[in-house]
Amino acid sequence: MVIDFIADYYNNIEHYPVLSQVKPGYLRHLLPRSAPLAAEPIEEIIKDIETHIIPGITHWQHPAHFAYFPCTASTAGILGELLTAGLNVVGFSWVASPAATELEAIVMDWLGELLNLPKPFLFSGNGGGVIMGTTCEALLATLVAARDRKLAEIGEGEIGIGKLVVYCSDQTHCAFAKAAKIVGIKQGNVRVVPASKTTSFGLCPDELVRAVRSDRDRGLVPLFLCATVGTTPTAAVDPLLPLCRVAREHDIWVHVDAAYAGAACVCPEFRHVIDGVEGADSFSLNAHKWFLTTLDCCCLWVKDPSALRKSLSTNPEYLRNQASDEGGVIDYKDWQVTLSRRFRCLKLWMVLRSNGVANLRNFLRSHVRMAEAFEKLVAEDARFEIVVPRRFSMVCFRMGVANLVNKKLLESINGSGRVFMTHAVAGGIYMLRLAVGATLTEARHVAEAWKVVREQADAMDVEGIVGC
Amino acid sequence: MVIDFIADYYNNIEHYPVLSQVKPGYLRHLLPRSAPLAAEPIEEIIKDIETHIIPGITHWQHPAHFAYFPCTASTAGILGELLTAGLNVVGFSWVASPAATELEAIVMDWLGELLNLPKPFLFSGNGGGVIMGTTCEALLATLVAARDRKLAEIGEGEIGIGKLVVYCSDQTHCAFAKAAKIVGIKQGNVRVVPASKTTSFGLCPDELVRAVRSDRDRGLVPLFLCATVGTTPTAAVDPLLPLCRVAREHDIWVHVDAAYAGAACVCPEFRHVIDGVEGADSFSLNAHKWFLTTLDCCCLWVKDPSALRKSLSTNPEYLRNQASDEGGVIDYKDWQVTLSRRFRCLKLWMVLRSNGVANLRNFLRSHVRMAEAFEKLVAEDARFEIVVPRRFSMVCFRMGVANLVNKKLLESINGSGRVFMTHAVAGGIYMLRLAVGATLTEARHVAEAWKVVREQADAMDVEGIVGC
Repeated sequence: MVIDFIADYYNNIEHYPVLSQVKPGYLRHLLPRSAPLAAEPIEEIIKDIETHIIPGITHWQHPAHFAYFPCTASTAGILGELLTAGLNVVGFSWVASPAATELEAIVMDWLGELLNLPKPFLFSGNGGGVIMGTTCEALLATLVAARDRKLAEIGEGEIGIGKLVVYCSDQTHCAFAKAAKIVGIKQGNVRVVPASKTTSFGLCPDELVRAVRSDRDRGLVPLFLCATVGTTPTAAVDPLLPLCRVAREHDIWVHVDAAYAGAACVCPEFRHVIDGVEGADSFSLNAHKWFLTTLDCCCLWVKDPSALRKSLSTNPEYLRNQASDEGGVIDYKDWQVTLSRRFRCLKLWMVLRSNGVANLRNFLRSHVRMAEAFEKLVAEDARFEIVVPRRFSMVCFRMGVANLVNKKLLESINGSGRVFMTHAVAGGIYMLRLAVGATLTEARHVAEAWKVVREQADAMDVEGIVGC
Repeated sequence: MVIDFIADYYNNIEHYPVLSQVKPGYLRHLLPRSAPLAAEPIEEIIKDIETHIIPGITHWQHPAHFAYFPCTASTAGILGELLTAGLNVVGFSWVASPAATELEAIVMDWLGELLNLPKPFLFSGNGGGVIMGTTCEALLATLVAARDRKLAEIGEGEIGIGKLVVYCSDQTHCAFAKAAKIVGIKQGNVRVVPASKTTSFGLCPDELVRAVRSDRDRGLVPLFLCATVGTTPTAAVDPLLPLCRVAREHDIWVHVDAAYAGAACVCPEFRHVIDGVEGADSFSLNAHKWFLTTLDCCCLWVKDPSALRKSLSTNPEYLRNQASDEGGVIDYKDWQVTLSRRFRCLKLWMVLRSNGVANLRNFLRSHVRMAEAFEKLVAEDARFEIVVPRRFSMVCFRMGVANLVNKKLLESINGSGRVFMTHAVAGGIYMLRLAVGATLTEARHVAEAWKVVREQADAMDVEGIVGC
């Protein structure tokens, strides 16, 4: 019944408004005030999901979902998740389910090789990969590892955590500043380097040098750089090669956050965007974003797993076991923030096998082509402007120069229920973002999206808005 | 096919050794060196799971899995997870899928009421609940909230994070010290109060007072107490009422970690174990442990959600939306460490409805009864000792007083493949733990477990071991 429900859901998905049209608090009066004393049949529950839950869903799997970044599902991903729930093992240490750990290590080497990650990031090169829930966790784990390594070097007592400085650009995802705050970096020591339209919103290495030197002059200690490949606002690419060079000079840990765009690197023609990654310490991408694996599946590779382990290991008596004591196994609990962990690699393994690398590449390429087509349509309409050159499968555009007009335009586009896009502001420019990436999106959906944009633009009283 | 596979798995589960018998590295030579270029049929993948993965699984769902704490699956839980994967929405903010947020708030109030949590922990009492992955995340989130509130009070500049002290007992889960380390508490400032057999391994309030006073005398600042209801080694219960009284006097945030045993509080007869929780600031339990909800599902309630939000909020332009700006909605990304989040409440809602409260209570009671039966069997055998009185569904026992004998006994029990138990050491005593809790466990499995223990004990050369 549930499988049928999901199959029907996908069959009907185009009939739903992409963006849920419910009002805040809609659900509370539709459900009972408390849990039922007696068991209820599954039929009742599924009926309630249809009637009460579906209207409150913003459909990320809708082919006209172009908002945020994609969060792709697929048959293999869903079935993998189902198997994970069915087996329901807790793979915190090797012995707690050896297959969960060993398959993860193997699949992370597979994917790392596909991305052409330098050997030192792979198990076969004495690095290794681990699957977490989200980039937030990857940032936390690497920040803590870098923090503790640095404090061990310079002496916690004398310098202290209050002197450590981390670096990013004003285009970096907010998850980074949040992670830095969590691990105790002073908010005044999160150095946000402005990126501008002249560098296509990439982080400028010279600006980084200036910031680092100024901090060192003031007696502060540079710790960590979060470089992004495919930023959230505009899919900008920070230049890894020169940034890593600067970082190495000042003994700064470099993490490359390729949450969305990293997947594209399985295609040889896009791999150049991470040229220079050999100088970084860690690299992550979210397979749940643009790689058909359901939420959540953040893949993190590090060159020095011992740095993670030194910070994140626990070895309580009640988890002691012979395999761990002998030291020949991976205990992933020591590589990550949490101890318990789901058997997440199963779905990634199934996505890789069930699609095959060739199809996965073609899938990503097809999204890029659709974005190119949309970019072309925008460029042909004199009212519109491509704000930054399209990268990957994302197009950033606006109508005229008035931010308020574009805000109103986006509201009316999303109010139509026919498509869902979100916005960004970079360099003071408010822009609409079309992020192609849902598994079911076809060229016709992108064409329809442009039609919606044009229709809403036609209907707008631009002068009235600008005048007011 | 996958549903059939899972059904067969449960039908055959008793034929598998509970503890996987594979050797480290078993899987790498069984799988190809890299991901396939062409798509592979699902039949192939399932065959590989049967042949290569299942032997490497330690079967947490096996009815003779008595190790660690239970991690219960159930039909409703698995189907809930399947639906979550099918819809695959990302509910970081209300607008990103209103139903995901609203259902979570409703279900957390339902469960909070079932546990008879004081009103201030519920949304209906201006507190509220949130679902995370694991207790580690709940500890991180509350520690950061408490830390930042304290630093705001006393001034970050003058005192600094280096002066903050956190408290627990030597029975507290290692996740707490790990979380404290992550948020920047000095390792020397994690105050581990020894608990002894005289207090049944509960944290003694007088000892806490002494530790807090000594820290204050040295100019340190008490911050946080992690009290546990149902510790990992022996299922001990820290006395919340007096501990919270001490904490209030010294302005210490109290978190109650009831990861395993909290579920029992849905039964009125067990509810007394959290008497005094009204004096705490936050409370968490893992519905994936002993409440039929598949991994992961950590339920956290706080009295003051604004403390979480002050520490964990992010408000980047690209996530701005009208509903959040107007302030009438919950954006759960601001209540937790990570931003992205799965639609986890769906499975908890399905578990509550599909079983009904009455059956859930009976389910928990049946496990407690089985543990009682095992305790009785142990007590009747003169060679054995119940180390601490049984609590909930866990029995801690040993054979004689020699730790090494018990270690060998456990090895031979687990080597049989017929049951899986783990051990703990408390007060210097090595003991075996039988934690009843798998969904399929029946009285006969517990009787069989005792039979295995006795057989292995009979076969042991105790004097040979003690002599060596």
